[in-house]
Amino acid sequence: MAWIHLVTLLALIEYLGFAYLVGKARATFGVKAPAITGHEIFERYFRVQMNTLELLIVFVPALFSAAAYWNPQWVAAIGAVYLIGRIVYLRGYVADPRTRSIGFGLSILPIAVLLVGVGVGVVRALV
Amino acid sequence: MAWIHLVTLLALIEYLGFAYLVGKARATFGVKAPAITGHEIFERYFRVQMNTLELLIVFVPALFSAAAYWNPQWVAAIGAVYLIGRIVYLRGYVADPRTRSIGFGLSILPIAVLLVGVGVGVVRALV
Amino acid sequence: MAWIHLVTLLALIEYLGFAYLVGKARATFGVKAPAITGHEIFERYFRVQMNTLELLIVFVPALFSAAAYWNPQWVAAIGAVYLIGRIVYLRGYVADPRTRSIGFGLSILPIAVLLVGVGVGVVRALV
Repeated sequence: MAWIHLVTLLALIEYLGFAYLVGKARATFGVKAPAITGHEIFERYFRVQMNTLELLIVFVPALFSAAAYWNPQWVAAIGAVYLIGRIVYLRGYVADPRTRSIGFGLSILPIAVLLVGVGVGVVRALV
Repeated sequence: MAWIHLVTLLALIEYLGFAYLVGKARATFGVKAPAITGHEIFERYFRVQMNTLELLIVFVPALFSAAAYWNPQWVAAIGAVYLIGRIVYLRGYVADPRTRSIGFGLSILPIAVLLVGVGVGVVRALV
Repeated sequence: MAWIHLVTLLALIEYLGFAYLVGKARATFGVKAPAITGHEIFERYFRVQMNTLELLIVFVPALFSAAAYWNPQWVAAIGAVYLIGRIVYLRGYVADPRTRSIGFGLSILPIAVLLVGVGVGVVRALV
């Protein structure tokens, strides 16, 4: 399970890095807490963090559940695609929100593969 | 654990479905990213997704922890109530935010039961 | 693992408590759903809940992953610091958003320790 824990660890650190960028953007663009609007670039960083939170809640359980049925190294490799997809998403969204779909696709596709893997594993175990 | 993984899988897919509805509402009502306000119906779909995210973060750990102490099939059955509760919540909130409490109750009640189950299990294990 | 489940349970209950305070603030300050702005104090409670959600998504996987490599009682003890940090954060943020950093530090520090623990454990397992 060490590979699964490694990918989980990297996903959590990546997410905390995005949260750090939001805090930095808050300072840079003078958006005082608790406001979450007020500057377009701040809002982009904020939405990147929120979108990552929204996916992370799916990614981690999908990763661990898939590893209960399939080779953890393969599952971890699929998880690594998600890690890269989030970086692409961050760069795309901050540059131009309309270009965020490539990074989003690279994030949601490995999650979809993991979910299909869980589904197949569950059906094979129950039938 | 396959029943627990099945309920988890369905909860994750349900949540991604809600996120998909937000994206669709964004397009339908012309709310451009990164804005998260601007049209009442979009905001309702957005709040349904956020509220589901807020509960999912509790639901999944509670489900797995409860299954460490109690019959996983019973735990999964309690989890299934949550899945239905979220559908009722979605329909209620989008129709009229004031009617969201039935669906909310149907979502939070099974979570409360799972948490009580974890508590009793933990106390019995430690005492 | 009962100590890990206990800390998880307390973290989930604490978080639901914060969500309850948001609902209460919504009623007290007349902020009708789906709005999430409109009154400064409501927004503080809301941001406390959101910030706790943002950390909880990291805390729970870090706690369980760390417990796979280290003495679960020690891991649970580190997790208990997070529980206290969140209370300090709540009190600080609601009183004055500028004083939220102590509670935030007390929340993020144990998470950082857990993540370092996972990292060391993973490296030792893989090398």
